[in-house]
Amino acid sequence: MTYCVGMLLEDGLVMVGDTRISAGPDEMSTCRKVYRHVGSGDRVVMLAYSGNVSAFQAINRLVSQGLPMVGSEERVTLSTCQDMFEVASLVAQALQVVRTRMTAAMEWGRFDFDVHVLVAGQVRGSAHALYLVYPAGNFVEANADAPFVQIGEQKFGRSILLRAVRHTSDVFDALKLGLVSMADAIESNSEVGLPIDILAYRRDTFMFDVDHRIEGGDGYFQEMKERWSAALRAAHRAIPRPPYGNPGQ
Amino acid sequence: MTYCVGMLLEDGLVMVGDTRISAGPDEMSTCRKVYRHVGSGDRVVMLAYSGNVSAFQAINRLVSQGLPMVGSEERVTLSTCQDMFEVASLVAQALQVVRTRMTAAMEWGRFDFDVHVLVAGQVRGSAHALYLVYPAGNFVEANADAPFVQIGEQKFGRSILLRAVRHTSDVFDALKLGLVSMADAIESNSEVGLPIDILAYRRDTFMFDVDHRIEGGDGYFQEMKERWSAALRAAHRAIPRPPYGNPGQ
Repeated sequence: MTYCVGMLLEDGLVMVGDTRISAGPDEMSTCRKVYRHVGSGDRVVMLAYSGNVSAFQAINRLVSQGLPMVGSEERVTLSTCQDMFEVASLVAQALQVVRTRMTAAMEWGRFDFDVHVLVAGQVRGSAHALYLVYPAGNFVEANADAPFVQIGEQKFGRSILLRAVRHTSDVFDALKLGLVSMADAIESNSEVGLPIDILAYRRDTFMFDVDHRIEGGDGYFQEMKERWSAALRAAHRAIPRPPYGNPGQ
Repeated sequence: MTYCVGMLLEDGLVMVGDTRISAGPDEMSTCRKVYRHVGSGDRVVMLAYSGNVSAFQAINRLVSQGLPMVGSEERVTLSTCQDMFEVASLVAQALQVVRTRMTAAMEWGRFDFDVHVLVAGQVRGSAHALYLVYPAGNFVEANADAPFVQIGEQKFGRSILLRAVRHTSDVFDALKLGLVSMADAIESNSEVGLPIDILAYRRDTFMFDVDHRIEGGDGYFQEMKERWSAALRAAHRAIPRPPYGNPGQ
């Protein structure tokens, strides 16, 4: 399983993803799910996915190598797209190519093609943006009213994001909330696990402020989890007992 | 959808369940999902379910009316069971009878039989207990190491229960945590909603300490949600920003 979240902020973008992959509880390993592409100073692109590892790796190769454009000799690659909508279109097209290629094999193995891809970034001269590409190959754009998008095991860590992440949140505050959300998912589901890959980008800079892997034993992550747990304990203790019936007995 | 949680505590039992039912987002209504049966001072039984409403209502009628026992003229009912294991067995048997009756109709309508039932209570002379009955008709007992059981939309409100509910928790503290968990589920999923039915029982009393419906506008529930949200905000604000990259910029 997987848990990744992308955030579209006024001032930038955040992506947080775990690395746990599994084919059943006795076959767990670690695999990167958050990828970044940096152009020659004119673009940054982040991708994260949930679902079939092999399918995404094929998609990722295709978008780097490029796909033929209809009615043109040129290939479109991550380096030639004019804006993030074109990047999302490229990823979606690559996903459909891979899905078509893999259909027979997946049916044979009784797998569903369940790849979801987060696509975020900025191309110089256009706005930073965040998209979610569905397994069907259609995609939706995040917006100020819905500034985060989750894929994979999203329910455990959702309530803190709903309560706290706003389009106007500071990039590093949003990153922190992404890590709290990830800690909740890890706490609740053994198929989400460390290390965690994190990216943070401030718009118009075309370089990453954060491009980091949090390993097990990381001091900040450990302390954040402890503080968060302690604060939750204090929070529920401070709430009075329900007044229904005879709580005082 | 549904969210219900049952808790097995050293000193008693708690059950919390929402009442939202839906057949798609444009067909929502309210229906009780937490039921209680009180014998003549010798037993209390609580039931809560997720899944097909019609199937559970038939199960509930069967366990009240009773089922024939193998090799006997007597019918087993909730009033004749000797302990909670027998109660769970009765519910499981009723579930299987209903499933068999409904199979053809459900296949015709392309529904899955997905009824999960929480069964909790105490029969005088035996221990208080909590069981989860699966759609197959098998069931498992909660124990001190796993003192709560959730059914339905369980992921959103799981992390607070994992962090805070212990077998040794006070009954009213556990009820409070159940309400916090329910508030998280309601916040995150439009198919979980008020009113909320709550039951709390202290062992060996054979009467409910709490048997209450929390309606929209309930003062305690509203204040609890506000305090919880405020505490979560304060909690994540108090955590320092991640030190990776250049957070100080």
